[in-house]
Amino acid sequence: MRFAQTIFGYMQTWDQLFLDVNIATMCSGDTPYGAISNGALAISDDRIAWVGPESELPSCDAKTINRLDGRWLTPALIDCHTHLVFGGDRAMEFEQRLNGVTYEEIARAGGGIRSTVRATRNASQSVLLESAIERVVTLMREGVATVEVKSGYGLDSQTELTMLEVAQTLDQSCSPSIVKTFLGAHAIPEEYQFDADSYMDFVINEVLPEAHERQLVDAVDAYCETIAFSSHQVAKLFEQAKSLGIDVKLHADQLSDCGGAELAASFNALSADHLEYTTATGVEALASSGTVAVLLPGPFLILGETQLPPINEFRSNNVPIAIATDCNPGSSPLCSIRLAMNLATSLFKLTPEECLAGATRNAAQALGLLTDRGTLEVGKRADLAEWNISHPRELTYWAGLNQLHRLFINGEIVD
Amino acid sequence: MRFAQTIFGYMQTWDQLFLDVNIATMCSGDTPYGAISNGALAISDDRIAWVGPESELPSCDAKTINRLDGRWLTPALIDCHTHLVFGGDRAMEFEQRLNGVTYEEIARAGGGIRSTVRATRNASQSVLLESAIERVVTLMREGVATVEVKSGYGLDSQTELTMLEVAQTLDQSCSPSIVKTFLGAHAIPEEYQFDADSYMDFVINEVLPEAHERQLVDAVDAYCETIAFSSHQVAKLFEQAKSLGIDVKLHADQLSDCGGAELAASFNALSADHLEYTTATGVEALASSGTVAVLLPGPFLILGETQLPPINEFRSNNVPIAIATDCNPGSSPLCSIRLAMNLATSLFKLTPEECLAGATRNAAQALGLLTDRGTLEVGKRADLAEWNISHPRELTYWAGLNQLHRLFINGEIVD
Repeated sequence: MRFAQTIFGYMQTWDQLFLDVNIATMCSGDTPYGAISNGALAISDDRIAWVGPESELPSCDAKTINRLDGRWLTPALIDCHTHLVFGGDRAMEFEQRLNGVTYEEIARAGGGIRSTVRATRNASQSVLLESAIERVVTLMREGVATVEVKSGYGLDSQTELTMLEVAQTLDQSCSPSIVKTFLGAHAIPEEYQFDADSYMDFVINEVLPEAHERQLVDAVDAYCETIAFSSHQVAKLFEQAKSLGIDVKLHADQLSDCGGAELAASFNALSADHLEYTTATGVEALASSGTVAVLLPGPFLILGETQLPPINEFRSNNVPIAIATDCNPGSSPLCSIRLAMNLATSLFKLTPEECLAGATRNAAQALGLLTDRGTLEVGKRADLAEWNISHPRELTYWAGLNQLHRLFINGEIVD
Repeated sequence: MRFAQTIFGYMQTWDQLFLDVNIATMCSGDTPYGAISNGALAISDDRIAWVGPESELPSCDAKTINRLDGRWLTPALIDCHTHLVFGGDRAMEFEQRLNGVTYEEIARAGGGIRSTVRATRNASQSVLLESAIERVVTLMREGVATVEVKSGYGLDSQTELTMLEVAQTLDQSCSPSIVKTFLGAHAIPEEYQFDADSYMDFVINEVLPEAHERQLVDAVDAYCETIAFSSHQVAKLFEQAKSLGIDVKLHADQLSDCGGAELAASFNALSADHLEYTTATGVEALASSGTVAVLLPGPFLILGETQLPPINEFRSNNVPIAIATDCNPGSSPLCSIRLAMNLATSLFKLTPEECLAGATRNAAQALGLLTDRGTLEVGKRADLAEWNISHPRELTYWAGLNQLHRLFINGEIVD
């Protein structure tokens, strides 16, 4: 039987039992949303111990019984692509652009990513942490239990390490768990303006090994684009990552077709992100390598892009699609995964079920965590979002309305 | 002196005094945002009694002194166009459309606005109230102190009156003040499917007079469009409204140029709303009549519209621009004025200052309330939003991050 699973014998005493609940397990299969009406779910320690229709619940006992009055449980949400540790903000250049100042003028005046690099280098670790906590807590309040955080505004050894340390401290000081991504190859810093190769060598030979040794790297990311790093440069970085036993992911094909999807696939990347200009060949490569396509409606909207990612090709090739905020001070000052899901319907025509899978199951896969979370199945971490809704489609339909009733992370209620 | 105003003599004892504060008065003039750095603001009873630079503060005393550590005060936000009282939702048809079902198929199956009319007619007053309270409270939590609410999902005498009564009860049971708009001419109900003229006569001669007599009508609105009511029909309604001494506003030129802006202007309408297809002639008419252009990025995004309202013509003709959520279950399940402001930058290229003016000063004007609220000036209602920001542009730059520190309505803190 598919849903009525148990890892214990009958009359097991569970820590918590949820009754009178509808459950969107988000297990892929025949039922939309993997839905179970009139379900039950049990937790022991921090794991899901039983999930299925209440009518099939075995004889059992529980220390705490939660009656949910028909509310819905889904997997807690996951934001699998953010740059939410940064110094300063870019609100002023946002305003300048809307007042007619061009990108070139802003760049010439020291704006753009370089201004964030300056602000991040100049910020103390506590200032970086405090502003990042505000963003993580904001995500948590709408049901997020796992957040990926990238470095990439240091572009020097010390600040890249600081950013990853802030991410590690976030993991310890906030309830959501933080996944740390090393993105030293985010942009070419001013000091290496005309020598991207040397900067990449520095990243490969000095920064990454040290960050890895200090256990600050869960994955390695890079920005492959005409304005950033070439395929060849990224390949060298990924070879180093692989030799250290670290998984990779890639900012790919956002502004042009750089063969980013193919490059990511050739390294069995966890995910390839953006993908507006990815070709049919790139999609097939992602399908072969089992790489998740992470779509980012925030920067698509804010940069006024018109080239859509090849959604139908992802679907027909069974490439898992994830959705993320891309929370960052330049192209996506967006701190709401629910809003990213909603925008993905308007901008990319994803269905509500694809959007919810994109912020649960497929986001977990994009972080290499699918065996641990992202669906409601026995043995997985008890990261549960409890919603005041009549149907999980409402989580994508509404923008700006937060129907979260309670969030459980590791089986514990988060306030 | 422009900002250092007082309506009392020296050594007045005020109820509350705010010090160490930056103030965006949103008074139009030379200073962007009407900003005062290092300002002070005093409240007596529920009114603003003094506002200006702290250095110019007269000798004074206050029962309560609030030191704001450099935080910003703006006028509390105003959402001047919503349909947030309704029964049911339309999440299922939202999902159906994204799964490829056409509008025609949905309409043939009884979907669209008619399904909301059915659900609203069938809902009890307490159910309508409860769901509306959730939406008003959601708006309030991001700094909104005034919300316009329309009828228009009853389309029969009893339910139209019920919706307005719910709006009136909302006004009494929530902290934000509610402005009640009669929108009996929202759509042609099934019972009058082939006789819009008769329905309009019914609205004009029966529903509106009764609603007015029961003091449930602050303004009269209508939907002028090929799929709704003609200019001629709307003109008859507006004549009745004017004869009862009620101001009017209009859903105008959303899907086609129906001469809606000209029609609204000819009745000195408070506002004309949507306006995607308004021509240069229409803009000039709005300018002459002092009618506010209310722009609604929510339905623009969700309906996938591409025809932009004539923003530059509004600017060059000094037509005040307001922004609103259009919160409704069909074309705009959007319950965030901050998000509407943010979307107005991406979709309409409004500046952050225009967006904030659009949700304060110009929104107040759109409701006929500019003498009472919408800017921070002596004599106006003490509706203040206190923000954890470095600059008011951040209120439009961020999506999904709520920097509200405290909201004061009528001079009182709202929780």
